[in-house]
Amino acid sequence: MPDHPLVPGSTSAIEKGPWHYGADYITVYFRGELEALRRLVPAPFVVDDPLCMAYVCEIVSVADSAADMVATRPDRTIYQEAAVGVKCGFNGKAGIFFPVMWVTTEWSLLRGILNGYQKRLADRISMTKLHPLNPGLKAISPGARFGGFCVKGPEQPLSLDVTVERAGAPSDLPAFGATFGMRRFPKTGEGQESVDEPVEITKSNSRVSDVWIGNGSLRTTPEVGKTQPLSGAVYRSGFTISGSKSLKE
Amino acid sequence: MPDHPLVPGSTSAIEKGPWHYGADYITVYFRGELEALRRLVPAPFVVDDPLCMAYVCEIVSVADSAADMVATRPDRTIYQEAAVGVKCGFNGKAGIFFPVMWVTTEWSLLRGILNGYQKRLADRISMTKLHPLNPGLKAISPGARFGGFCVKGPEQPLSLDVTVERAGAPSDLPAFGATFGMRRFPKTGEGQESVDEPVEITKSNSRVSDVWIGNGSLRTTPEVGKTQPLSGAVYRSGFTISGSKSLKE
Amino acid sequence: MPDHPLVPGSTSAIEKGPWHYGADYITVYFRGELEALRRLVPAPFVVDDPLCMAYVCEIVSVADSAADMVATRPDRTIYQEAAVGVKCGFNGKAGIFFPVMWVTTEWSLLRGILNGYQKRLADRISMTKLHPLNPGLKAISPGARFGGFCVKGPEQPLSLDVTVERAGAPSDLPAFGATFGMRRFPKTGEGQESVDEPVEITKSNSRVSDVWIGNGSLRTTPEVGKTQPLSGAVYRSGFTISGSKSLKE
Amino acid sequence: MPDHPLVPGSTSAIEKGPWHYGADYITVYFRGELEALRRLVPAPFVVDDPLCMAYVCEIVSVADSAADMVATRPDRTIYQEAAVGVKCGFNGKAGIFFPVMWVTTEWSLLRGILNGYQKRLADRISMTKLHPLNPGLKAISPGARFGGFCVKGPEQPLSLDVTVERAGAPSDLPAFGATFGMRRFPKTGEGQESVDEPVEITKSNSRVSDVWIGNGSLRTTPEVGKTQPLSGAVYRSGFTISGSKSLKE
Repeated sequence: MPDHPLVPGSTSAIEKGPWHYGADYITVYFRGELEALRRLVPAPFVVDDPLCMAYVCEIVSVADSAADMVATRPDRTIYQEAAVGVKCGFNGKAGIFFPVMWVTTEWSLLRGILNGYQKRLADRISMTKLHPLNPGLKAISPGARFGGFCVKGPEQPLSLDVTVERAGAPSDLPAFGATFGMRRFPKTGEGQESVDEPVEITKSNSRVSDVWIGNGSLRTTPEVGKTQPLSGAVYRSGFTISGSKSLKE
Repeated sequence: MPDHPLVPGSTSAIEKGPWHYGADYITVYFRGELEALRRLVPAPFVVDDPLCMAYVCEIVSVADSAADMVATRPDRTIYQEAAVGVKCGFNGKAGIFFPVMWVTTEWSLLRGILNGYQKRLADRISMTKLHPLNPGLKAISPGARFGGFCVKGPEQPLSLDVTVERAGAPSDLPAFGATFGMRRFPKTGEGQESVDEPVEITKSNSRVSDVWIGNGSLRTTPEVGKTQPLSGAVYRSGFTISGSKSLKE
Repeated sequence: MPDHPLVPGSTSAIEKGPWHYGADYITVYFRGELEALRRLVPAPFVVDDPLCMAYVCEIVSVADSAADMVATRPDRTIYQEAAVGVKCGFNGKAGIFFPVMWVTTEWSLLRGILNGYQKRLADRISMTKLHPLNPGLKAISPGARFGGFCVKGPEQPLSLDVTVERAGAPSDLPAFGATFGMRRFPKTGEGQESVDEPVEITKSNSRVSDVWIGNGSLRTTPEVGKTQPLSGAVYRSGFTISGSKSLKE
Repeated sequence: MPDHPLVPGSTSAIEKGPWHYGADYITVYFRGELEALRRLVPAPFVVDDPLCMAYVCEIVSVADSAADMVATRPDRTIYQEAAVGVKCGFNGKAGIFFPVMWVTTEWSLLRGILNGYQKRLADRISMTKLHPLNPGLKAISPGARFGGFCVKGPEQPLSLDVTVERAGAPSDLPAFGATFGMRRFPKTGEGQESVDEPVEITKSNSRVSDVWIGNGSLRTTPEVGKTQPLSGAVYRSGFTISGSKSLKE
């Protein structure tokens, strides 16, 4: 049988999971406006607290079935991502829903949509990198500045910057709980099948390191309402996603 | 309700259809190998004739609901496409199935997958354009050469060239019949919903012009088997797609 | 001898000229601020009239020595360009100087810099295309709207739109006269050679067709001062550039 | 005075130097064919030994005058580079000349050409990255594989892979000596000024770390002749370039 772009396999857009991730983040935590956020987050997820996060990151990702692609097809293992996430709950369980998540490659776009992320393709995502051997740059230290932005067509749906103040611990990062999503594959004609399914992303193996805490600012889509930055952070993180679990009763 | 990337709407990746297309094609008709093609075309479609086509084209496309985007968001109305199609049948109805179709924009990728095309994102598709006012180029005439190629990562999944011999008529182009597709949205976890549905794309308003006929050659994915070029053509075409119709019994 | 990127030849970034161009333009004519424009246009060119033009266009270009590249290397024959030009004079001869011109390919960037254009590389230039066979689009007619934009990193240095009112003639387009440029190749160390040379671009074979006249608006770099749109136009144009002529005494 | 793309300044393509670099390299050392290499390396540089290197790398680069751009304009501080270098000499001084060097940004292209590198713009350069927190990847260790490739239009002018065998020291990397270049800005018309100048790039602050040594293989442009891989290496490096020194007598 031929490989459909969404049916995981070696000639598909997507390898068979689980999928492993290692990422470098620049993140701003902020408050949006409750009513605006409620319009952004679909039922059955409930928004009671306007706490949000926005980030840009670079991710090295491999499928468990194809880790050697880092060497044979590096273009299939590296991408940039930018996203806005909103704190919410489902049946009393706390979590985060990402109304939008921009990525720079086909495979992260399609893999994400399949798992329940609302992914979009960015034209470009760029973010600060410090290189320890660059004679003109200092190692990260209090006062160091980081920035990033996402461009899509004539629009710049996210830009943010963070100034770090102190080294921190993983426990210094706000915890949101579970990662919620929405798997949708609508009809384009009468009599078609469709999918419309809230999910919880199945994450494991989470680890965080190199945390620096400070303050930040951001500009993003007006749909989140007026934004009030709370803090900023720079850190590395790794995790595994094995799929997602239906929340439909 | 927020706009999911696949749920047509003004802040989605996809506008609400019907969708109108105007395209400039460089096409090579060829025979592949029957057994290889049968592995490429999924049931319930049946391959009895190894006739295939490969093309590169540039498309101007607008949703019926948003034709003014040609002026306000031209990046949402122009893309390049490259594809390989295989003659096949369903319940005695003749048609064509495209095992793969590369495109250069997010919205054509996702719209196509929703309608049943096996779309993939290309890094680059390039093809011959002649400009009537360029003092170094002649208007199309017998002997004129056209070429195109598609690049994806380190691979070049399609390249073709056509030398035209004579002006032709739309009836000079091989007719394949209906356009078949496969809408798939597989599970990524137990208990999930999924879609697995053969379809016929709902096309109307077809028109063809500026036909030139000649010979061609191509290089493409080995999955089609050894290729034997039959003819080449350059032409313009327009049509409307309103969705797709389930072929599931 | 190996091919240097700037030394025209078959393995260089640039083919040997003359170079032929055929282009589709969307143009806005406007007044900037005289003092601002004088800071933008280098001596020996003199600005006495704040008349300017801004455009986006798609260009098919071939070297006289390599016209078959439209078929063999179409990626070396098509690019998009956006530019701002300022009316000016040299020794009483009227002309135009382009303080900046964004392009989408390496070869148009380097060829232009060599000839005296102040070219920059854009990430993306997008502009309206109408396709005559698209069932959802009308042929150009009074009231038709066109738009275009240029993106570079997080910036959008030019966006413009034009609404056409009537078919026109080439003589309806404001004439600027000669095209002036500045060839510069500065030192990066003591004792190096350098070039600092005003030029006139050597253009011939000019022809214009498909002219439509109307009104327009634009947003561009603040360096031109406050802009006052005068008119808009859509047209096709062709010409040949054989190099440039030094204006140094 | 307006900023010409090549005249360093805040609105130019190039910031004022010196320029600092921090880079991660995947490198293959190889022998080419002496006669082929002699055609690739221009006088006054002399090739007596067919030793070459090819690499892909990612570079974080800042101008001394604008190190804060890592935060404010990260797109102006990160690029990928691929190159082939040939051992050669000038007046008895040993060094390396790079007949071609592909890069992914405008500013590294133009800055390089100005300093004497034969830079070309790549469509894409991709290379292995390992992320220490990715649960599916191991830290670098004997047997780890790295790969990279460069795409330009329909061509893939360089691809290479390295399998590391042991941790090494900077002194384990072959030393080539000085970095030679050729600054060229040819005429495009009679009476024009031009530059044609061999140079030595002015490098300082060199440092190397994280060296791993092993074996490698490569495919590259046939102009180097038949290639015989000698060894492979993965390492990080930093240095400063302040310009280049004319070697003209």
